Amino acid sequence: MSEHTASATAALDGRPLVAGRPVEGAAGSLLAVDPATGEEFGPPIGLVDAAQIEEATRAAEEAFDAFRSQTPAERAAFLRRAADNIDGLGEELVDRAVRETGLPRGRIEGERARTTGQLRMFAGIVERGDALQARIDPALPDRAPLPRPDLRLVHIPVGPVAVFGASNFPLAFSTAGGDTASALAAGCPVVVKGHNAHPGTALLVGRAVADAVAASGLPPGVFSVLFGAGNDIGRALVTDPRIRAVAFTGSRAGGRALMDLAAARPEPVPVFAEMSSVNPVVILPGALADEGATALADAYVASLTLGSGQFCTNPGVVFVPEGPDGDRFVDRAARLVSEAAGNTMLTAGIAAAFDRGVRALEDHPGTEAAARGEAGPGPNAPAPALFTVDGDAFAADPRLQEEVFGAAGLLVRHSSAQALAGILERMEGQLTATLHADAGDPGDLAAAHALLPVLERRAGRLLFGGWPTGVEVAHAMVHGGPYPATSDSRGTSVGGLALNRFLRPVSYQGMPDALLPPALREGDPWRLDRRIDGTLVPGGQA
Amino acid sequence: MSEHTASATAALDGRPLVAGRPVEGAAGSLLAVDPATGEEFGPPIGLVDAAQIEEATRAAEEAFDAFRSQTPAERAAFLRRAADNIDGLGEELVDRAVRETGLPRGRIEGERARTTGQLRMFAGIVERGDALQARIDPALPDRAPLPRPDLRLVHIPVGPVAVFGASNFPLAFSTAGGDTASALAAGCPVVVKGHNAHPGTALLVGRAVADAVAASGLPPGVFSVLFGAGNDIGRALVTDPRIRAVAFTGSRAGGRALMDLAAARPEPVPVFAEMSSVNPVVILPGALADEGATALADAYVASLTLGSGQFCTNPGVVFVPEGPDGDRFVDRAARLVSEAAGNTMLTAGIAAAFDRGVRALEDHPGTEAAARGEAGPGPNAPAPALFTVDGDAFAADPRLQEEVFGAAGLLVRHSSAQALAGILERMEGQLTATLHADAGDPGDLAAAHALLPVLERRAGRLLFGGWPTGVEVAHAMVHGGPYPATSDSRGTSVGGLALNRFLRPVSYQGMPDALLPPALREGDPWRLDRRIDGTLVPGGQA
Repeated sequence: MSEHTASATAALDGRPLVAGRPVEGAAGSLLAVDPATGEEFGPPIGLVDAAQIEEATRAAEEAFDAFRSQTPAERAAFLRRAADNIDGLGEELVDRAVRETGLPRGRIEGERARTTGQLRMFAGIVERGDALQARIDPALPDRAPLPRPDLRLVHIPVGPVAVFGASNFPLAFSTAGGDTASALAAGCPVVVKGHNAHPGTALLVGRAVADAVAASGLPPGVFSVLFGAGNDIGRALVTDPRIRAVAFTGSRAGGRALMDLAAARPEPVPVFAEMSSVNPVVILPGALADEGATALADAYVASLTLGSGQFCTNPGVVFVPEGPDGDRFVDRAARLVSEAAGNTMLTAGIAAAFDRGVRALEDHPGTEAAARGEAGPGPNAPAPALFTVDGDAFAADPRLQEEVFGAAGLLVRHSSAQALAGILERMEGQLTATLHADAGDPGDLAAAHALLPVLERRAGRLLFGGWPTGVEVAHAMVHGGPYPATSDSRGTSVGGLALNRFLRPVSYQGMPDALLPPALREGDPWRLDRRIDGTLVPGGQA
Repeated sequence: MSEHTASATAALDGRPLVAGRPVEGAAGSLLAVDPATGEEFGPPIGLVDAAQIEEATRAAEEAFDAFRSQTPAERAAFLRRAADNIDGLGEELVDRAVRETGLPRGRIEGERARTTGQLRMFAGIVERGDALQARIDPALPDRAPLPRPDLRLVHIPVGPVAVFGASNFPLAFSTAGGDTASALAAGCPVVVKGHNAHPGTALLVGRAVADAVAASGLPPGVFSVLFGAGNDIGRALVTDPRIRAVAFTGSRAGGRALMDLAAARPEPVPVFAEMSSVNPVVILPGALADEGATALADAYVASLTLGSGQFCTNPGVVFVPEGPDGDRFVDRAARLVSEAAGNTMLTAGIAAAFDRGVRALEDHPGTEAAARGEAGPGPNAPAPALFTVDGDAFAADPRLQEEVFGAAGLLVRHSSAQALAGILERMEGQLTATLHADAGDPGDLAAAHALLPVLERRAGRLLFGGWPTGVEVAHAMVHGGPYPATSDSRGTSVGGLALNRFLRPVSYQGMPDALLPPALREGDPWRLDRRIDGTLVPGGQA
């Protein structure tokens, strides 16, 4: 790969990136921890102080006008360069990420492909100019009683974005993950709060992106990666007047704290926080008939325990019909969970929180323990767990809707589609909701028709069959949903629409062609699909 | 017109509309006030209590699924029926609005045309399905290493919306104004908090809309108009768990209070508040040359005093070059303002707030009083006022950026385009920013190029020439902008994009055709423009 790549791979010296530049952390350092052994390892990762945070946000603000004035081709080339640089990190990145997260090598490699593929997808979207949503209402000088002025609309980026990555996807939802990729694609400089659970991974990726910034001739303030010991850095970023939007993936408590901080600013800014979901799966009777219960239970436990259950879309709650077919599903799932071994979770804190969540389910008067697997050999590898609960008991206690992050499943027994609708109406917002039904069975089909409107009001993605743990990076993906799944159901953090979160419309009235943004000029120099008087005209034709 | 219209016009009995039904207010009543005389007049308008508010929001929630499942043609017909019913109110509506607001008859008639035209514009947008933004990523069963599932995305409405109308546009920004029209177009039931400054107008329009709801076979919960004496009704609506979004037009204090309430809910919801703007107008030297100063001053004072200055887009702050041409502009504007008479403002409270704002400008050590007109003959008709201030003094005191709602202008003298950029960088967010320049003058053109990025970051609409007080209802209009102009710069309350504020994306994975929303089905039954694998395919072709 390029010299830039070489410098990035050689550079894991633990220095945070303030406006693209490695600096000595002014507030001490931390060490990465191998969750599989509990051992700390170097290099020490520098922590920034308030002045360094401000240096990064100030540089981001100063870089904004230059960054946002790139052509689509330039922006796309920058995003592809960042993807190439991340690919170019090679084995050093994979080794580091595996050691910092305890995730298997194959998973990290797949996640890297997803991460760079995501950057390249946004490059394509930027090139086509979809998100600019250009509109032109030509002047009507002879209109009575008043002439209409020439009006043209385009979307521009909101300004510097603070990104808080997730622990559970150290590449795809972290430093250069969906939030960063979509904010950069929109034209927003990004200040990443690097995740302390994978700081070396964050810095390696950060250098790859910063090198792409430099190689693209952009001001270095376009990208920073900072670390801090506690919550102060988050508070400082979210309340910084130069930060114009916030993206976060993590816990409900953490996301809500950032939402509250952003809403209390003198000048509030939007927060897109992806937080908490138990991803209800509804099984209707037809899906269990003809031995369907066996295959479904196998697929369920595979999804539940995938990656130690550390997915935002983990199927935490499954609604299973009462009766013998449902019993068969429960029995089979219980046997599989009891045979499953725990794998290393991301951090000691996450493993401890899992233990607390499982204990709460054990202690709950309404639940029954259906199965418990074996703990893994090392530390932080708690045993998978499965519980059952009666539908009424589930509906009666909102605590049973709380996400237990990890491989803990709750099977809710339901007596009818009607009872189910009543239970689902009382559920919180979700990232996903899944329906297993036999579309050829009239009873199932009627129930599905009745339940879908309820699920639509509660989730960002509805699956028919399958399991929610795969989140395709695609134009039609929604990874979002009503609170507490996210802070704002109108956005998605994965897929082609993700960059729209960071754009706002601006209208130009009577503006001479030379002063208009190129997207709105006569002759359509960027060959964009534009809406003329409300009607879509394909690129280059107006 | 239709019988429905007849029943609406006959119905101004003062009863609020709870789920479309006139009810006796359980919390007393209020009387409308004629601001031109200070006289109260009937009928008494019923105020609702907490139970009636909850009845309205509960009905809105119950109506949601039926309302949102309308076809585009049905929704469009409903919107057009509402428009027809409002037109059908005839002179009774105009008489009542004139008496309640003190606005001239011609203005009310024009505003009515704008209001019904707006409903009809949204009907057209709904018919075309623009806002659904349908996307399809077909399955790739043979993709390695994993097949891709079929993914389809459409936008659905967020749920019941609470609308707080403005006092200054009793039709176009009130009961069936832009917020209500766009929320209904999106498929959201609406609960209007009727404005106490024009309660009879609100009820007449409300009955016209409620009659359209009934005539369209929709559940009556789709539309309610409620009144309350103080802030309790606003608090009750914004914190009601059934309300999923809020739209507001009014004061900065009022909007911020609603934002804070919505953000503090257990389940926060988006607020679109349009609040406060001084709409900076930047005059560059070329625009004043060749006697340009005279025409510009004439147009400025006409815009400043239009409708007693009671426009969100009133040009409150104008930047005028130092030097003789600028002096000529100031002198001419001062003479015109000194000759202008005050007209009746909307309410005694608004007139009093105007007086306080003018006094604060008078008392400010940095400003000079340039002119004061005559007060109008009746009450609540304060004299227009004009002040000047030096650029440095303006930049030094943020209080000088505060909106004085009404015909009070502040002329800021600037020494150069560079000094101007520094001043503008310190301004708050605005609805509009206007540039007057000679596009053929190299100095002006260079200055415009330098200033436009600064203005873009601060405003939702940029004008070249003209005055911001006309807000065209068009596809390319933005009536929005960074805080405090609005609560969220990503939205607009006027124009084709306004309904997008009330929509959220939902993705369907592996869903059988019969269970998909029609917008996403094979064969494109609604003939929508849809994005297939990211590429736009015109309606009916996929």
